[in-house]
Amino acid sequence: MNNKNLLTKNELNDYKKLLLKKYRKEKREFIIEGKHLIEEALKHKNLLKKIITSNYSFELINKNVDLKYTSFKNICALSTTKNPQPYIGICNFLELKKIQEEKILILNKINDPGNLGTIIRTANSFNIKNIIVEGVDIYNPKVIRATQGAIFNMNIFNVNDLKKEILELKKQNYKIVGSLLDKNSIDYRNLKLDKEKFALVLGNEANGIEKNIIELLDYKVYIPIEFDSLNVAIAAAILMAKYYDK
Amino acid sequence: MNNKNLLTKNELNDYKKLLLKKYRKEKREFIIEGKHLIEEALKHKNLLKKIITSNYSFELINKNVDLKYTSFKNICALSTTKNPQPYIGICNFLELKKIQEEKILILNKINDPGNLGTIIRTANSFNIKNIIVEGVDIYNPKVIRATQGAIFNMNIFNVNDLKKEILELKKQNYKIVGSLLDKNSIDYRNLKLDKEKFALVLGNEANGIEKNIIELLDYKVYIPIEFDSLNVAIAAAILMAKYYDK
Repeated sequence: MNNKNLLTKNELNDYKKLLLKKYRKEKREFIIEGKHLIEEALKHKNLLKKIITSNYSFELINKNVDLKYTSFKNICALSTTKNPQPYIGICNFLELKKIQEEKILILNKINDPGNLGTIIRTANSFNIKNIIVEGVDIYNPKVIRATQGAIFNMNIFNVNDLKKEILELKKQNYKIVGSLLDKNSIDYRNLKLDKEKFALVLGNEANGIEKNIIELLDYKVYIPIEFDSLNVAIAAAILMAKYYDK
Repeated sequence: MNNKNLLTKNELNDYKKLLLKKYRKEKREFIIEGKHLIEEALKHKNLLKKIITSNYSFELINKNVDLKYTSFKNICALSTTKNPQPYIGICNFLELKKIQEEKILILNKINDPGNLGTIIRTANSFNIKNIIVEGVDIYNPKVIRATQGAIFNMNIFNVNDLKKEILELKKQNYKIVGSLLDKNSIDYRNLKLDKEKFALVLGNEANGIEKNIIELLDYKVYIPIEFDSLNVAIAAAILMAKYYDK
């Protein structure tokens, strides 16, 4: 064990800061937890830079990733789960490209990191790679966990001024489709989008799409249901299955 | 405060037991948490029997429900959330009816209480009232919470022998439709069920529908996706939106 590469106290303190959005943004790094996410991250070039583990028998073949050992207590300090696995990864922010494809998803102030993560996972399954997010930080550990690694495949942007982004898309002839609860909108099954470039907008869990964004919509759709409301990740999935079908 | 009706130590110990499935089953009672669920439960006759609160200024108009006051520490002992609201409800098990309608959902060993709860909430929105569940206890506090109260509208059964239940439905001419990952199944969009009585089966998060249940399926469907897999609550929603459409 003497020749094992141990995590220093300074490094620990530095990485702990990545639990806060402010420092993630400053360092352009984020934390992932658990073997599954680390395996997924390893599939992507320039993403995972360091693994920290309390499993002293763990070895790594990939020489581009730095491996450090530490106590399980320190693993817990870097973790946001109740019963952490002994593996923490430090990743670089995703390398993003200009949006050029026609499949775009826009998330207007989704509040719950679990919902955001589940939407990202579903989008990946439907081969939607471009997501514009206003709201929760996409590098929040709870978001990453709920994506189950799907976020690593994404061209996903955190923006502050969604209105500006949507106006830019409209200039490029994207039609903007928004999901509302209002039954005066179009039944989502009756909107045909086969030949149009479009972006689908989903809004906040409690308040839906913001008023200044609703004004920009080309089509307003709703999912006809008989009681209460759908969870936003559920509504997103139903609409993605419909509109992003091959 | 002297004339307030205080929770006794014996009552507290009795209700704490309801956090365990075994005692819920024995007493035919379950715990709910928070104002929203209590308000939802109050809409149903014979459901909510007692409210326990640490908010001494809380009063209740409904005289059919018993109200007890206690310390916030005791509320925490009855709660399964990190930051509980000061309201706990004790409910009677749901009153169930024989299934007579044609909309049935069957859940074969769903493992995650959050997924089960989300599926129940979605089913309620699509007016599917009959659910047969093999697996997680439907009265698990995490399930109840994820349903956001939708479970109170349900005719929902926890069964031990799902095969027997499905054979019974088949005798009554229900067609059994199962959601598989296997691409040799029917693309779900190509199955028309307009005039048939049917029940939709969803399986476990990791393993899907069990082999002995697959053998009973009349139709095997899959959702075509390009990457990974969908969360089971997401798959359930896409299929419900398709098959239980008005």
